[in-house]
Amino acid sequence: MVELKDDERLDYLIADESMQIIQSPSVFSFSIDAVLLADFSRIPLKRGKILDLCTGNGVVPLLLSKRSQAHITGVELQSRLYDMAKRSVAFNHREDQINLIHGDLKDMPARFGNNKFDAVTVNPPYFKTDNEAHHNKNDYLTIARHEVYCTLDEVISSCSNLVKSGGKVTMVHRPNRLVEILTLCKRYKLEPKRMRLVYPKEGKEANILLIEAVRDGSPDLKILSPLYAFDQQGNYSNELRGIIYGN
Amino acid sequence: MVELKDDERLDYLIADESMQIIQSPSVFSFSIDAVLLADFSRIPLKRGKILDLCTGNGVVPLLLSKRSQAHITGVELQSRLYDMAKRSVAFNHREDQINLIHGDLKDMPARFGNNKFDAVTVNPPYFKTDNEAHHNKNDYLTIARHEVYCTLDEVISSCSNLVKSGGKVTMVHRPNRLVEILTLCKRYKLEPKRMRLVYPKEGKEANILLIEAVRDGSPDLKILSPLYAFDQQGNYSNELRGIIYGN
Repeated sequence: MVELKDDERLDYLIADESMQIIQSPSVFSFSIDAVLLADFSRIPLKRGKILDLCTGNGVVPLLLSKRSQAHITGVELQSRLYDMAKRSVAFNHREDQINLIHGDLKDMPARFGNNKFDAVTVNPPYFKTDNEAHHNKNDYLTIARHEVYCTLDEVISSCSNLVKSGGKVTMVHRPNRLVEILTLCKRYKLEPKRMRLVYPKEGKEANILLIEAVRDGSPDLKILSPLYAFDQQGNYSNELRGIIYGN
Repeated sequence: MVELKDDERLDYLIADESMQIIQSPSVFSFSIDAVLLADFSRIPLKRGKILDLCTGNGVVPLLLSKRSQAHITGVELQSRLYDMAKRSVAFNHREDQINLIHGDLKDMPARFGNNKFDAVTVNPPYFKTDNEAHHNKNDYLTIARHEVYCTLDEVISSCSNLVKSGGKVTMVHRPNRLVEILTLCKRYKLEPKRMRLVYPKEGKEANILLIEAVRDGSPDLKILSPLYAFDQQGNYSNELRGIIYGN
């Protein structure tokens, strides 16, 4: 059994029902973005060390643990989310594989040292906080979605420090931040190698960006085939269904 | 009538047969990339000044003149291509609208001054010349395709100088150069605003990149719906057919 707090519920992680995760609409519920990030990321499968920053309720480590035996560390700043992640990892009996840290991603290079992880994944806050007055710094969802406690620059520089030379950093973000993401990757010696754009459906602008960069890699970006989330009838596309149900 | 040299032929510009252009397989023949660039670029339609760099045989100015009354200047370094462009413009009776210059794009800011054009289009050489020994500097196709006489940095900095503040620079290039293109645009105060990726067909990686940047614009990139060149049967897609035959 799992202990659930008032506003929490236990959801199936993805549709195969082999894993469940603690969610709360008022605190944090994982999105399709996290599922796409876990699917897109190329990670060591047998051994090695994976780091997931901004781990939220632990959705990405749990998904990655379905296909990899590598050790996974998840870092979450918000104690309430960290607590949810801890309980979900325990509920799914992944305590030996997944280690959760309650802390600030900016402190992780000092904690672990540089050049330590084979792969890093991150689903950072998407929105700039140009006007801080609009944000409640104590609101769970605001902190998860807005750059209240970490900027994109800080996220990318932390990833760059923590990943090994030749290791992959994989991020999900919004396409309108692409220029900034690529500029910062170059600044921090993360060479963008593989990119995929997700479109809500045919004929629409992209609304999700998946990008993989290699520490100290040589320049050569591939832009993969587009992924459509929905078909023209408004149902999940076959490919997205495969990602959600397939692995 | 038009004077054609030995290796030249007169081709229909696009399929509506209202315009013809001088081509030569051994010197220069325009590609679908130029047609996509002309279609993607947002240009003044009634008045104003448009500049097309690396104009080749004048394909982009001729295509733009089908939908715009603005004055168009085309710049081409290679005298043989410049000569073809001149004769094609005359053959299509566009001498009043299209002015061709035989010169180096790097000299254009000194010739015209900065901040002079409402829109700039460019289909530059795609390939780096890491090993100059491989290239024949007198070969027409090599000069058109490889950065023998201008680097991407020089192309983008020239565009930035020549376009007015708020004016659009539109470029066609290869997706594997995206990181460099965006980095250089930022360096030269061209803010990427609109991007479209062209894929040979569904399930394949992108092979053509269309990008529009605004001089001194504010950051906000939109990534438009993908364009597929061919359908699954290997025929032009409906959308590409519309671009080629439609306007």
